[in-house]
Formats: sequence, structure tokens, C-alpha cells
Amino acid sequence: MSSEGRRAPTGHATLQPRVSDALARATLEELAVTGYARLTVEGVARRARVGKAAVYRRWPSKQQMTMAALSQLVVPIADVPDSGSLREDVRASLRALHDWLVDPVYGAVVPDLTSAAAHDAGLAEALWREVGQPRRELASAVLARAVRRGELPGDLDVEMALDVIAGPLYWRLAVRRVPVDDSYLDDLSAWLLRALGASEV
Amino acid sequence: MSSEGRRAPTGHATLQPRVSDALARATLEELAVTGYARLTVEGVARRARVGKAAVYRRWPSKQQMTMAALSQLVVPIADVPDSGSLREDVRASLRALHDWLVDPVYGAVVPDLTSAAAHDAGLAEALWREVGQPRRELASAVLARAVRRGELPGDLDVEMALDVIAGPLYWRLAVRRVPVDDSYLDDLSAWLLRALGASEV
Repeated sequence: MSSEGRRAPTGHATLQPRVSDALARATLEELAVTGYARLTVEGVARRARVGKAAVYRRWPSKQQMTMAALSQLVVPIADVPDSGSLREDVRASLRALHDWLVDPVYGAVVPDLTSAAAHDAGLAEALWREVGQPRRELASAVLARAVRRGELPGDLDVEMALDVIAGPLYWRLAVRRVPVDDSYLDDLSAWLLRALGASEV
Repeated sequence: MSSEGRRAPTGHATLQPRVSDALARATLEELAVTGYARLTVEGVARRARVGKAAVYRRWPSKQQMTMAALSQLVVPIADVPDSGSLREDVRASLRALHDWLVDPVYGAVVPDLTSAAAHDAGLAEALWREVGQPRRELASAVLARAVRRGELPGDLDVEMALDVIAGPLYWRLAVRRVPVDDSYLDDLSAWLLRALGASEV
């Protein structure tokens, strides 16, 4: 139990980053076990060994607590460093997506939130704004670099390209739940470059 | 309330197909509302206006009841008639997948079962055996026809081809929940044919 969790704040509370980090991790771990429908602020606070006040001082609801955890821990995964080559960037993006979806925590959290969002328009909107859109902007940067290098057509349909890159691996790992090996990721990269109309495949 | 639902069977019961059909539809409608975790035999029987015995005479558990409904109503959707052209067959497959995923009932049921299966290995195994595998065999037939016509390479990686065809639309409609129009399906067909290495694109 941290001191921050026990004491009520006097005046402007200083939010300890260490506690915020612990809460973000605890939120995702708790989500993986209980699912969003049964997620509670109490359960997350207990897992993070802080009081409920430590949560409520940061976020007024479980939805905002969840979005904060996702935007801190999930969005940066989509940031792929510039390798100078579309082929390498796509391969690294697939690897990052793979590692995310087979992770024991995320592998349960992502399908659960997808399902919860189908019944909860507010959650769906928040997921898109806080997670989907920022991840998509990072992934778009990979394509924009390739267009600038002349590896992809200037009139590339970026929306479709992002669906085509992410979809097959999501279907395989999160829906069918069939594992893949490195050679699958290599071959899939080549197939996706052809789909995108990459100049040098 | 049907007579079959009220009376206990004497000796070998005759299972009325009309009641079985009503139960299959009621199972999916109830699933769309409650989700798999809260699905009950009672709820399905009530929705179908039969007694619980009508369910239990057919299936001993909610898992088997669910699989029966899916294999009756979901598997046939993947059966695309032979148009004589890979492009037309892929386009028809995408249309069928689209209509399935945007359906108000299936659009909720599919992500929910995917999420439930992440926590329930028995459900995951049954879903694959009763739904995934039969659907995949129907979809494979589309590719086998194209290989025979010389439109696809003889050494096509069929597993990857099926992931690449289904994944983008699932990602778009069931995960991102962004609608698509006919021209998206046309363009996606062309991208997928390139990915598959189709001879005449």
C-alpha cells in the first residue's frame, strides 16, 4: 500500500508517475483476467496496491482509466523506427503486431475490448480516439516514408493499406488463434508489398 | 409454447426440424444480446417459446447448443458459387463476409465468441472444429478452382491466402467498425488478387 493511496490529498495533489505507471499495468492485467464488463476500479487499485482514491484522483471512470492505460502502453508499440526500406519497415510492423497479439495480457485484452465496444458506443468512440487513431497515425508514417522514397505510388489508398497490413495477422492470431513462425511473417510481408503495389518486390 | 416443449419424450423422441430451426435462430439472437458468458439455455428456450426440455433433448450444454446454431446458420454463408473467375469469386466472398459482419446479430456474436474463446480453450476448440474448419474448407474450394484454371500458382500457400482474404475486412468491420462501400470491396479484391499472385489482375 503506497502512502499516496492511503492519504487524501490536501490542496493540489501531486500525481506520482510511479503510481500512474503501476496503475496502467494493473489495469491491463486486471482487464486480461476479468474482461472489461467486470473490470472495477477496486480490482485495479487492489492489484496496484494503492487505494481507490489514487485511481479517482487521476480518472473519474473505469473507461478513462482503461483509455489512459492503453494510450500509455499500447500506442507506442505501433511506432516502428525508419529502416530506410519499406520491406524492412513492414516486416518490423508485422513483428510488433505479432508480439502484441501473442502477449498473454494483450492477447486477451484486445479481443475483449473489441467485443465490449460492439455493445458500448462510448467505449468504441474512446478506443478509436485514444488508441486506434494514434496507432494509425504512427503506422501511416511508415507508408508516407515509402511514398517519399518512391517505393509506393503517390496516390496510395492509405486507409486500405493499413487495413490490409493489420488484418491478416489479427485474423490469424486473435480470431483463429493459430501461431505463426518467422517464415510466415517473411512471406506475409512479401504478399502485402505486392498488394500495396510496391515498386520493388 | 410448443407441445414438444411441454411433454417429456417417451422412448425415442422425434426432434421437429421447425423447433430446431427456431432454437438455432433464438440462440444467435440471444447471444447477440447477452454475450456468450451470460447466455443460458433458459433464455434461449424463452426466446424460442419452447420449454427447456426441447433444448436439452437436442444438446446437453450451452456450448453444444451454440455450436449447432453456428454450424447451421454461419457455415453455409462461406459457400460461394463458382462464377468461373477468381476475381468474381473473391469479390463474392468479400461481399458474403461483409454482409455477415455488418449483420446486427452476427456483428455482435462474432467478436463476442472470439473474446470468450480467448478464455475458454474448450470453446475455442469447438469453434474451430464446428465453424472455422468447415468455413475454411468452403473458402479453400474457391482457391482450388482458380489453381485448376491456372489463375493462381499451383504451389499457392492456401493457409496464408485465406488469412489475407478474410483479415482486412474483419479488421475493418469487426475491430475498427468502419463501414465500407462497393468501391472499397472492388479495390480490396484487386489488392488481394495481387497479393495472391493471380495471373490476370
